Amino acid sequence: MTHKIAILGASGYTGAELVRIIATHPTMEIVALSADRKAGMEMSDVYPHLRAYALPKLTTIDEIDFSQVDLAFAALPHGLSQALVRDLPRSVKVVDLGADFRLRDPAAYEKWYGQPHVAVELQKEAVYGLTEFYRDEIREARLVAGTGCNAATVQYALRPLIGQGLIDLDRIICDLKNGISGAGRSLKENMLFAERWTNVEGYAQGGKHRHLGEFDQEFSALAGRKVEIVFTPHLVPASRGILADCYVEGDPKAIHAALARQYASEPFVTVLPYGQAPGMGHVTASNQCHIGVIADRKENRALVVSTLDNLTKGSSGQAVQNANLMLGEEETAGLMLAPVFP
Amino acid sequence: MTHKIAILGASGYTGAELVRIIATHPTMEIVALSADRKAGMEMSDVYPHLRAYALPKLTTIDEIDFSQVDLAFAALPHGLSQALVRDLPRSVKVVDLGADFRLRDPAAYEKWYGQPHVAVELQKEAVYGLTEFYRDEIREARLVAGTGCNAATVQYALRPLIGQGLIDLDRIICDLKNGISGAGRSLKENMLFAERWTNVEGYAQGGKHRHLGEFDQEFSALAGRKVEIVFTPHLVPASRGILADCYVEGDPKAIHAALARQYASEPFVTVLPYGQAPGMGHVTASNQCHIGVIADRKENRALVVSTLDNLTKGSSGQAVQNANLMLGEEETAGLMLAPVFP
Amino acid sequence: MTHKIAILGASGYTGAELVRIIATHPTMEIVALSADRKAGMEMSDVYPHLRAYALPKLTTIDEIDFSQVDLAFAALPHGLSQALVRDLPRSVKVVDLGADFRLRDPAAYEKWYGQPHVAVELQKEAVYGLTEFYRDEIREARLVAGTGCNAATVQYALRPLIGQGLIDLDRIICDLKNGISGAGRSLKENMLFAERWTNVEGYAQGGKHRHLGEFDQEFSALAGRKVEIVFTPHLVPASRGILADCYVEGDPKAIHAALARQYASEPFVTVLPYGQAPGMGHVTASNQCHIGVIADRKENRALVVSTLDNLTKGSSGQAVQNANLMLGEEETAGLMLAPVFP
Amino acid sequence: MTHKIAILGASGYTGAELVRIIATHPTMEIVALSADRKAGMEMSDVYPHLRAYALPKLTTIDEIDFSQVDLAFAALPHGLSQALVRDLPRSVKVVDLGADFRLRDPAAYEKWYGQPHVAVELQKEAVYGLTEFYRDEIREARLVAGTGCNAATVQYALRPLIGQGLIDLDRIICDLKNGISGAGRSLKENMLFAERWTNVEGYAQGGKHRHLGEFDQEFSALAGRKVEIVFTPHLVPASRGILADCYVEGDPKAIHAALARQYASEPFVTVLPYGQAPGMGHVTASNQCHIGVIADRKENRALVVSTLDNLTKGSSGQAVQNANLMLGEEETAGLMLAPVFP
Repeated sequence: MTHKIAILGASGYTGAELVRIIATHPTMEIVALSADRKAGMEMSDVYPHLRAYALPKLTTIDEIDFSQVDLAFAALPHGLSQALVRDLPRSVKVVDLGADFRLRDPAAYEKWYGQPHVAVELQKEAVYGLTEFYRDEIREARLVAGTGCNAATVQYALRPLIGQGLIDLDRIICDLKNGISGAGRSLKENMLFAERWTNVEGYAQGGKHRHLGEFDQEFSALAGRKVEIVFTPHLVPASRGILADCYVEGDPKAIHAALARQYASEPFVTVLPYGQAPGMGHVTASNQCHIGVIADRKENRALVVSTLDNLTKGSSGQAVQNANLMLGEEETAGLMLAPVFP
Repeated sequence: MTHKIAILGASGYTGAELVRIIATHPTMEIVALSADRKAGMEMSDVYPHLRAYALPKLTTIDEIDFSQVDLAFAALPHGLSQALVRDLPRSVKVVDLGADFRLRDPAAYEKWYGQPHVAVELQKEAVYGLTEFYRDEIREARLVAGTGCNAATVQYALRPLIGQGLIDLDRIICDLKNGISGAGRSLKENMLFAERWTNVEGYAQGGKHRHLGEFDQEFSALAGRKVEIVFTPHLVPASRGILADCYVEGDPKAIHAALARQYASEPFVTVLPYGQAPGMGHVTASNQCHIGVIADRKENRALVVSTLDNLTKGSSGQAVQNANLMLGEEETAGLMLAPVFP
Repeated sequence: MTHKIAILGASGYTGAELVRIIATHPTMEIVALSADRKAGMEMSDVYPHLRAYALPKLTTIDEIDFSQVDLAFAALPHGLSQALVRDLPRSVKVVDLGADFRLRDPAAYEKWYGQPHVAVELQKEAVYGLTEFYRDEIREARLVAGTGCNAATVQYALRPLIGQGLIDLDRIICDLKNGISGAGRSLKENMLFAERWTNVEGYAQGGKHRHLGEFDQEFSALAGRKVEIVFTPHLVPASRGILADCYVEGDPKAIHAALARQYASEPFVTVLPYGQAPGMGHVTASNQCHIGVIADRKENRALVVSTLDNLTKGSSGQAVQNANLMLGEEETAGLMLAPVFP
Repeated sequence: MTHKIAILGASGYTGAELVRIIATHPTMEIVALSADRKAGMEMSDVYPHLRAYALPKLTTIDEIDFSQVDLAFAALPHGLSQALVRDLPRSVKVVDLGADFRLRDPAAYEKWYGQPHVAVELQKEAVYGLTEFYRDEIREARLVAGTGCNAATVQYALRPLIGQGLIDLDRIICDLKNGISGAGRSLKENMLFAERWTNVEGYAQGGKHRHLGEFDQEFSALAGRKVEIVFTPHLVPASRGILADCYVEGDPKAIHAALARQYASEPFVTVLPYGQAPGMGHVTASNQCHIGVIADRKENRALVVSTLDNLTKGSSGQAVQNANLMLGEEETAGLMLAPVFP
């Protein structure tokens, strides 16, 4: 049975990545692609790499007949999904790739995003889309909120450790190296090729990044107390990928054991042998997350390194993984694409 | 039915690319991976990006039980395939990704490769692996010789034009931009990251590149007279991809029409609308070739631009495409992977 | 004696490059920096790499007291220099880095730039800034028109050959590989890092690029007949540099000899030994141009390869070289900076 | 007065960088360049970017007449300087860019480098080359030991904080992003372009990196007790530059004030306004170090970010800075080269 899929916001990078994945998905068929400002164009004019694939023309969202849609992926700029999803027919399942439904607490949403939420009821209903930890709820959900790409990378490394009380909760430092596609396709001077090509630079340092809202929510819930991590993302001259170095205080061997146990049967999360760390280029364009644990020469200190492709496991691949569950398909359907290297 | 596959020379980039493609191939199963100097290692130690996939350990070629192999891909350094293929059981079909069987004429082989061929009989038997032009022979072949990656890129642009007499045969200039993975994984000072990162540089200019042997053979046969092109490859700071600018003298519209006609029903070759040219980043990690034709302001001059991924359509993807035919499978099986962008 | 320098349009890449060069120039002092939309900001806010240098704050052009300025560099968007230079006091010497005064013929200007010239008298007065060929006129000039960066790269390769009748004038093909800084700092989707990083792509193919106006003017004047070259620039994933492959018909040895003779005593143009070609990364951030000549296996065909840094020898370095002459300084003053590699 | 300079080990990247800097140095003249395996070659064959500069041919060290040399830079592989410097005439001043004389304690040397030191007397005599902190000793020294490039980057950030007791000495975490030129020009598979281009990867994590010997020595001396930092370098796809994120516990404002005070009159170290962090691309090819301090949302936590070019301020620029002092020149002579951006 084929599921009819709409992609709302198909002209951004996560939209294009959804198309790439679904192009070889066995049971999904794209019936609508929307992009408000580029409505009327062919997808191949916006993304020439998709030229060989038969795809619907881009339309406005209003032009879509949602009675013919089983599931919609919303890959819209932050803030636009709330009203949109509220107004969709309840028969349409939704995976939102943006930030609109990640935070369950309206006050937290307003704090981090600077405006009140306009669909508070949906905010409560939405299931957080970190599949490996919310699998059962996702299977039953009508609305799933995809995680932030940084949020996913770090949570794979830290959730089992926080949940099992293996690390000092007041001393978690996460230093991330981020491919530049994470900034999306919008026009900013500091995202021009010449600005970034030889430049490694942190941003939103010191506790200003919006993904901290997710970390605070999830880690505090796990720990049963307030947990605030130190978090610094960096732009590196690469297109895809996030590599997170998480510096923690705890027993390295116990940490490795907990992670290995947690992910032993997960198809998309691989824990490396003790003492090895992954490279960002080893998961490119795949739905894989690789995690490694290295002991420091200082006692009771460990480095947990986690890496994934922000556009795939961090966003569009994760979205398809969740959609598979929501539609009753194999969780891995269409997602076993091997990483591209070199 | 599943076909049992051996990859000989699995530790090079084309070997790894074969594994990547076959990882999601519906009817191929890898039963053996050889790499003489790395025998005994796990593939994931040589290529950590393949860590999540269950693969046989690397062995020497001698350790492989070829009675259990339906088809072998030989991804060996140039010169090593000849004796090897000669000594394999005839029951094993072979796709050779190296240069050993590309040239039918022993004298031409010796001229371009500097040594006599040691399996002259096989050299005659081998079918040239440019699928779209040798499809019927490939279907019946026991041994297929994969083309050079440059040779494939340029031939897709020029074969129909030479074959149909549409361009001046004495004035064909091909200027190529090549991703650096084409140089393979062997250790050379000029392939170090720091040497290549800010550096665009031609090599083997003026008629010295070995792929000219293939061009001379194929184009002269098509034209029924000696044809020698001018050919300059360049290393550009990218990993994958070849973009070929072919400057020809002839009617641009007739040229475009001939190419459009030739590839109208080809699944892997796409001709862009007249006046548009493709970008190298639009075919990455796919088995696609994109071709465009642009008229010059000078009369009777055209630019034909062709691009493909050297590791995929230029090598390992092409090899799987040929193997599909040799094994009686759909030509496109496992090869519809969409390009990765950005 | 110190010369007082104004840089108009200091917030673009060529403006910043002028500051970089003048920072160690022995006799130039920057007294004014203008940037209309960023007026009021510190240069170090716009370009943090200049943070350690004492520089005037950015102002509007109107705020500059030109009675205190000996020479102004105009690094403005195309079209803005004409009226500006017309209205400057005649006591201020001007080096214009834009396209406004490159073409001597008003009709040619209007054809390539789509609008009539508003300072036709100045257009006649302006001296074309290819120093090695217009040195004497530049020494006497009040207004020098910097060349296009592509135009400079190709002219160094071809002027002696065209001027001495060494090549077929109807068959000149120039294929260029261009670092992306040449597109400037303005916001365009196709200049985002993620769009360009893995992508090599031609543009303005077939005779549409505006630098052809310069080629047509200069080469036709040299030859005494109409000369039109075939010219294709390409964006490659690098920040600085242009590598031009010029395919010509003529005797390779005579071509090399003519170039070697022409540039024998030039401080900034180096001709490599016969049979060698330069790499784009070998002139980065310097005022050097490297040229090589390689014979083809086909008789009477040669490849002339020329490379320079578009921001330095192709623009701001050239501008300082011309300013040195206009101010009576050593031509090489401040310009012997060695290329940066790796 | 001109100082006669020899560069021993001129074929490595730091050797070439010395040549680049000295090319515009007002009072240094290169009289000898050695490179044992490339002796007899022209420097321009080894480094074509230096083609326009008149340089001595490469020789073996034995061929150098040291009676004609005022100062030698030793840019040799680790371990080779010890015997060499021991055997040089005492009239020759030496700046060693390698690791041989960085550690004062023979036991520490043997621990980190795995072999006993063969010139223990010189090891004691050598002055540690972090100019801003050892200026007076360097002025009088005959032998200066250049610091490790990582060691320099982190020490600029932390020395004043450790020395003044502003931070918790047991909780210093330094996460570095390193351009790949730091690995030198030797042939390693993991330094090939295709391996590194899309790959960000840590190495020597957990306390295994040899530069820790320097940190331990210097920081423990400053603190008067044993100090061990956590230190993780990462390879990022760039050629030059190190960006160090130092996570410390202490009052951010006091930290910023201490750094601003320390470097207020230093020509090569710039402290940014409070709350701003530098980018790695803003010091490329210069002798500058930029430092920023950002407060975390968690109380008493600060991020100190430090960046420099590993080949310049981290190695060859530092070496020239020290040589200037040893030769009685202005410390800044030849070193005011502005950073190259973009």
